[in-house]
Amino acid sequence: MLSLASSTGRTWLARVEGALPELLLDHAHLERKAAATALHLLGQYPHHRFLQEPLAEVAREELAHFELMLRVLAERHIPFRPQSPSPYMRSLLALRRSREPERLVDRLLCCALVEARSCERFRLLSESLADAELAALYRGLLASEARHHGLYLELASRLAPEDALRARLGELARAEAAILREAPPRVRMHC
Amino acid sequence: MLSLASSTGRTWLARVEGALPELLLDHAHLERKAAATALHLLGQYPHHRFLQEPLAEVAREELAHFELMLRVLAERHIPFRPQSPSPYMRSLLALRRSREPERLVDRLLCCALVEARSCERFRLLSESLADAELAALYRGLLASEARHHGLYLELASRLAPEDALRARLGELARAEAAILREAPPRVRMHC
Repeated sequence: MLSLASSTGRTWLARVEGALPELLLDHAHLERKAAATALHLLGQYPHHRFLQEPLAEVAREELAHFELMLRVLAERHIPFRPQSPSPYMRSLLALRRSREPERLVDRLLCCALVEARSCERFRLLSESLADAELAALYRGLLASEARHHGLYLELASRLAPEDALRARLGELARAEAAILREAPPRVRMHC
Repeated sequence: MLSLASSTGRTWLARVEGALPELLLDHAHLERKAAATALHLLGQYPHHRFLQEPLAEVAREELAHFELMLRVLAERHIPFRPQSPSPYMRSLLALRRSREPERLVDRLLCCALVEARSCERFRLLSESLADAELAALYRGLLASEARHHGLYLELASRLAPEDALRARLGELARAEAAILREAPPRVRMHC
């Protein structure tokens, strides 16, 4: 349903459950970066009228989630600090084709996959965490990740025929699964 | 009160009143760029904990104003389109000192001045436009520009002693006034 080519198993869950402060910090950065990505796309593609409202709204929601995560960190006395770069988004974006509109299509599909992976892992966390407050937090955030996933797919569908889009989404989803599989084990929402 | 070193006269007002669609388009881009600036600062300075919540909130508010301006454009059948770059912010940012924390101080002071100039011109528009709906729009947006101006000054005050800050703000304000004075006459909120 989420277009993903692999399922997250118990290994990831066990790893992050043992280091929740690190996961929560990563999650805060993730929301900030998701907002920055949406806003960056707006600046890069001002001639695509159809992107403007949806991406502005996504950016605003991600910022609200960033602020939420800052509150969660503060309540738990987890210091907010810079984070080392992650290979996940960089490796995904390296797969973008170079010509437009394919480049933008790929970018939107990558965003859709990132949201899908977050959604899948938020669900795992909401079902498995012993910490009831955090489990509820992730249950609450699930819906918007799923909605953003659908939105990015819908935006991409404005730029490419359905068959081509589905094929490319499959390719990128397999690449996403490979990036996760091959990444060194770290406490990250993605890798 | 707004730290500006010059007042906007009737010439600017007459120019933009004769080309409101262009001004409104520029205003929409301005809100988007203001959000991008705040979010960019968050990404660049994650070790400055005190910046995080305030700048996230500023970015969220600017995005809401961007969405508001998209609605205003749509209602008036003004096409949203890309816009040629403006020398205003580029010229201002060129004045930043190169070492930290002076560089960030200058950046925050530049943001404070941009918000101050918007505030001054929104007030002019709210008092002068014959179009009552637009006059009300600008009256409504005044307060948040003034608040953002104050916030950027307050953030800068965390990084420099008051005397040094006041002196630097004066220098940058005089530079801002010179940039406006020397810019070719265009229909822009700033120049």
